[in-house]
Amino acid sequence: MAKKPALKALFFDVDDTLYSSTDFAANARQQAAQAMIRTGLRVDEETVLRELDEIIGEFGSNDDRHFDKLLRRMPKEAYPPGSKLFIIGAGIIAYHQCKFRSFSPYEDAIEVMRRLHEKKFTMGIISAGIPMKQVEKILRLNLLPLLECSHIFITESTGIAKTNPKIYMHACRSVGANPEECGYVGDNPAVDIDVPHRIGMKTFFSRRGTKYQNVPGAAEPDHVIHNFWDLLDILENKYELVPHA
Amino acid sequence: MAKKPALKALFFDVDDTLYSSTDFAANARQQAAQAMIRTGLRVDEETVLRELDEIIGEFGSNDDRHFDKLLRRMPKEAYPPGSKLFIIGAGIIAYHQCKFRSFSPYEDAIEVMRRLHEKKFTMGIISAGIPMKQVEKILRLNLLPLLECSHIFITESTGIAKTNPKIYMHACRSVGANPEECGYVGDNPAVDIDVPHRIGMKTFFSRRGTKYQNVPGAAEPDHVIHNFWDLLDILENKYELVPHA
Repeated sequence: MAKKPALKALFFDVDDTLYSSTDFAANARQQAAQAMIRTGLRVDEETVLRELDEIIGEFGSNDDRHFDKLLRRMPKEAYPPGSKLFIIGAGIIAYHQCKFRSFSPYEDAIEVMRRLHEKKFTMGIISAGIPMKQVEKILRLNLLPLLECSHIFITESTGIAKTNPKIYMHACRSVGANPEECGYVGDNPAVDIDVPHRIGMKTFFSRRGTKYQNVPGAAEPDHVIHNFWDLLDILENKYELVPHA
Repeated sequence: MAKKPALKALFFDVDDTLYSSTDFAANARQQAAQAMIRTGLRVDEETVLRELDEIIGEFGSNDDRHFDKLLRRMPKEAYPPGSKLFIIGAGIIAYHQCKFRSFSPYEDAIEVMRRLHEKKFTMGIISAGIPMKQVEKILRLNLLPLLECSHIFITESTGIAKTNPKIYMHACRSVGANPEECGYVGDNPAVDIDVPHRIGMKTFFSRRGTKYQNVPGAAEPDHVIHNFWDLLDILENKYELVPHA
């Protein structure tokens, strides 16, 4: 029987890999829409949500003035005089409240990460986004007890996008391993599979999220998983997991 | 018996008048300090709080990077490599969590405002600060059912500071009354009493907060109250409250 390849570290994407950012965002936007309507916005929920979708499509999900733009796009008759700031504020509060109430990881993801942590296996994060927003997610998902801060790479903080293999190189170097000895788990074929694949990392395509189901990448992933129990099976059966010192 | 003077509207300061911003801030800062220490900051709570006090003294309470500045002022040995953003994030999350858990009005203030609202008495807000921060407080204190948005004046939004009688003039005009027919309730003699007094408004000095106990104003307030039951007594006994249409 051939010797199993050694794996020294595994890096994870965050959004829609460790928690359902799609479900969270849909829920938070609905709560926000309802709060804005309760505070005086005279537009039905469906229209608010459709308009928000358009705004996010046009300005990106990291724009921090979605609700402000929403009100700007509405006719003046859509809200009582002087109420604009209060409607926006009510939307923001409801959105944030959602973070406190219902921001939670995929249970199996955290359980498997806990087991890998117990085996002293090194894990890290490579995630696209605004540093403080990604940091907030990592803290809320309670990941810090499972990995070192120095193994977390956020694109806007490193100054390298996930489309550039350098960010994956940095991550591998941070744990003192070659790319072939490291893996990456993500849900977006074009960046999470193709890019780390180019430098020889093992790639794990998480098919749980539906967002990128129909956006095939150029490279075949080394493994396809539907949840983290699949991941644990593959790690335990196909690799020799090397614990850190 | 002399006819009681007519009062058509009453405007309120927010911070330390309708809720204890002093208590809230002390509590939220303590929660934040503890969260930062739990996340790796190697400084004792007392030192963190003292440093935060200094930062707020130097940069003002509306600066939005208190925790960032705190970490910049600390030696590099005060936190593990790479953990800075996470410590700041943990502080921010804990501070916001406090807003959801323990942001509440003085009970008597809201109860008295509710009773005045039932009498169809017009109330409004004149408050110093950043619009969205003050809006958030007004929403969290659940004041919107008790007053019209168009009777709320926030300095950074109107472009007029509370040291300028114009903001009080605007407020009186917004309810269609002369200054002599309006009152203002606040805890800071130098702005909440002296300035509205200059244009002839009735002034109510709230002595509940301790912040300005030793900062006398130039003008004697028309009334001194220790809580909102005092206010209700005075309104009912010394004034003819004119309901709105």
